Amino acid sequence: MEEIVSLCKRRGFIFPGSEVYGGFAGTWDFGPLGVMLKRNIMNEWWKFFVDSRDEIFGVDAAILMNPKVWEASGHTATFADPLVECKKCHGRFRADKIAEGINESVTTEEFLNLHVKCPTCGEEDWGPIRKFNMMFTTHVGAVLPEDLSDAGSKELAEKSVAYLRPETAQGIFTNYKNVVDTIYPDLPFGLAQQGKSFRNEISPRDFILRDRECSQMEIEYFVRPDEWEKEFEKMVELNDKFLTEKMGLSKYRHLEVAEKDRAHYSKRTIDYMFEYPNGEEELMGLAYRTDFDLSNIQRATGKSMEYRDKRTGESFVPHVIEPSIGVERLVLAVLSTAYFEEELSGGEKRTVLRLPENLAPYKFCVSPLLKNKPELVEKAREVYDGLREKYTFVTWDDSGNIGKRYRKQDEIGTPKCIVVDFTTLEDNTVTVRDRDTTEQIRVEIDKL
Amino acid sequence: MEEIVSLCKRRGFIFPGSEVYGGFAGTWDFGPLGVMLKRNIMNEWWKFFVDSRDEIFGVDAAILMNPKVWEASGHTATFADPLVECKKCHGRFRADKIAEGINESVTTEEFLNLHVKCPTCGEEDWGPIRKFNMMFTTHVGAVLPEDLSDAGSKELAEKSVAYLRPETAQGIFTNYKNVVDTIYPDLPFGLAQQGKSFRNEISPRDFILRDRECSQMEIEYFVRPDEWEKEFEKMVELNDKFLTEKMGLSKYRHLEVAEKDRAHYSKRTIDYMFEYPNGEEELMGLAYRTDFDLSNIQRATGKSMEYRDKRTGESFVPHVIEPSIGVERLVLAVLSTAYFEEELSGGEKRTVLRLPENLAPYKFCVSPLLKNKPELVEKAREVYDGLREKYTFVTWDDSGNIGKRYRKQDEIGTPKCIVVDFTTLEDNTVTVRDRDTTEQIRVEIDKL
Repeated sequence: MEEIVSLCKRRGFIFPGSEVYGGFAGTWDFGPLGVMLKRNIMNEWWKFFVDSRDEIFGVDAAILMNPKVWEASGHTATFADPLVECKKCHGRFRADKIAEGINESVTTEEFLNLHVKCPTCGEEDWGPIRKFNMMFTTHVGAVLPEDLSDAGSKELAEKSVAYLRPETAQGIFTNYKNVVDTIYPDLPFGLAQQGKSFRNEISPRDFILRDRECSQMEIEYFVRPDEWEKEFEKMVELNDKFLTEKMGLSKYRHLEVAEKDRAHYSKRTIDYMFEYPNGEEELMGLAYRTDFDLSNIQRATGKSMEYRDKRTGESFVPHVIEPSIGVERLVLAVLSTAYFEEELSGGEKRTVLRLPENLAPYKFCVSPLLKNKPELVEKAREVYDGLREKYTFVTWDDSGNIGKRYRKQDEIGTPKCIVVDFTTLEDNTVTVRDRDTTEQIRVEIDKL
Repeated sequence: MEEIVSLCKRRGFIFPGSEVYGGFAGTWDFGPLGVMLKRNIMNEWWKFFVDSRDEIFGVDAAILMNPKVWEASGHTATFADPLVECKKCHGRFRADKIAEGINESVTTEEFLNLHVKCPTCGEEDWGPIRKFNMMFTTHVGAVLPEDLSDAGSKELAEKSVAYLRPETAQGIFTNYKNVVDTIYPDLPFGLAQQGKSFRNEISPRDFILRDRECSQMEIEYFVRPDEWEKEFEKMVELNDKFLTEKMGLSKYRHLEVAEKDRAHYSKRTIDYMFEYPNGEEELMGLAYRTDFDLSNIQRATGKSMEYRDKRTGESFVPHVIEPSIGVERLVLAVLSTAYFEEELSGGEKRTVLRLPENLAPYKFCVSPLLKNKPELVEKAREVYDGLREKYTFVTWDDSGNIGKRYRKQDEIGTPKCIVVDFTTLEDNTVTVRDRDTTEQIRVEIDKL
């Protein structure tokens, strides 16, 4: 993991958030190479699940939503971690993370019985377990800081509260009715969304795996209640196809989540567990959510969420299958699958990102063998310009010597390096060097 | 404007945010058609300014940043509107919006002298003008609501404050040094970002023109200080080319912002003023920001923001030219340029979105003339599948009668409707109907 974090920073993939100001825990910024990788991943997802399918449509909801959304969904009441404070050093911790074998619903008594020592000061002097809601809170409208103090207006403070959405899913459910009323899709149909969501993790950690701000890609797939099992199977297949064929992933397994570990409304959930460098972690989830969310909205708003089947005339609340994936988790899965360190013949080490071609930031790099030979540089520019006209993702590199350039292009995952040398000037061929095999062949410029 | 808002809702472009819960002021959700339009616009921008240029790179910074960013940038102190409260009805207003001829820095005395009546209750009984900072505030980390009350820890409350970024620009500037240190670009170079930013508008209004959450597309273009004028001119040209050729816009003008109206650090600013349905408004801005931002960071962090010129060996803080555009404003400019209502010969009215082809959600619509004739439906499906293999954005429509389908496709801006009729079964030609002229021609299926 450390080596991947280091490569990401060294090559401009991912930097710690606000780093120049000393950082900001749980946030990460994507640099030029990282943006290219992330965009490729997100665009492949959109192409695969939305653009190339007739029955899945996009939506893009605001991050700030009416707080009633989070009451109806249960987030206000239950989207919480158990927080415990050391009375000696005032360190605050997630109780279920500093003690083994307990879960999120641990009580104060259970926790105290475990006689855990404070990870910071080593004492055992704990306050009670308190519920810490992970939604970030803000206030919307003309509310001044002084309004929010005890001397201010409690009503104003409460009336103006809003949350940063902790998941994108509810942004889809709240738009379900508007979509049905405007584009009348046949069942089954899906609504897909890509966007940011926020979780105030008590202890963000593991690089981009557990950050406070993440990009999600979610689909709510609306089906007839009696067809959920069939549609669930199809969705498993579809997601496997995406992960293996488009993302080049294989180091994952399906974990059928046992009933006692599933959300109470879900009758089936598969966690896609990925072998990350520091252990197995959830890469994505596929959940059968029944009619839980639409029925909640129906109850909370008094508006019917029923769908009228055009063929049979029946009316019912559709059931939902939800594939949900965090972009940063996927980026890290792609990076850690692609990352290799190899001994070269001379004892030298090379680091290489064997990214699938569709995800690599640059597909080709063009270089003159020597940068102080104008005839080579000029010819290489010609080759570069020719490729650039046809392909978007071509990079130019004339820094350092050719060995250093190969090292660099290996580290950023460029599949092919094209080098213009003195032979090029004679016979119009260039060296094409393969990232994965390091083999070099000569190719005519016209046939590039 | 009302007609555009109505079309947007009716056809699934843009819905009021959280509408099913009664809405949430200043937020808007994009529906299936709106997402397609917005994605086309954002992707065209990225292709034009980043992918097709060698010297502009992407970054993607977190929305939550270290609060020192906003101290250094001046937002904590000055990103504020003058708020005034009516002591009778407790209505709160932006002083500069309810009184004419004053600006954001109006004093209480100046305001009272104007003898403004309260827009809500009609009385004239005002409290003092207070600065209302438009940044949304939140708290990051293990902070409980009770910590933030007066009885809680003031230190904890202050230490945990963070803001939703009010602009994407600072996310670029904070990454400038990391980018220079990792990819060593030559000057001039640009860093481009697309992402959300948030402003707690006291009175959000005018549809998506003044919302609380907007998507920005910004470039910080770093130049040699002695070359800013030349680079500024180039940037004007580039942005005009984008707006006219890629977005199909013409109803805008350059407003050279007078010195007294410019930000104090800017030596030149052009506001691109667009003729919106309800009046002229800023569509985008192009500002010469000097070395203001990088020097602020240098001062605040003690880290050098100097760039060492590879050719001359000189070191200096680069100057910056910033084109900044709000996606929603651009979407509305595109929609209002495309929107037409026409009288048809029979006295019927048709509404048509003459969207440029590159922005239209669907490029083609395929229909059987009658949906209860299986032979027509089958043939039309064949045509549809054939086109769908080659082109992503094809839609199928067999609802209502053919006239209704044309009306619908006109309203969502589909350039061509392809209709399979009985003649098709005889000679393999289809009717192709043009959105803008409503002319129909017959084309062989193979030549589609």
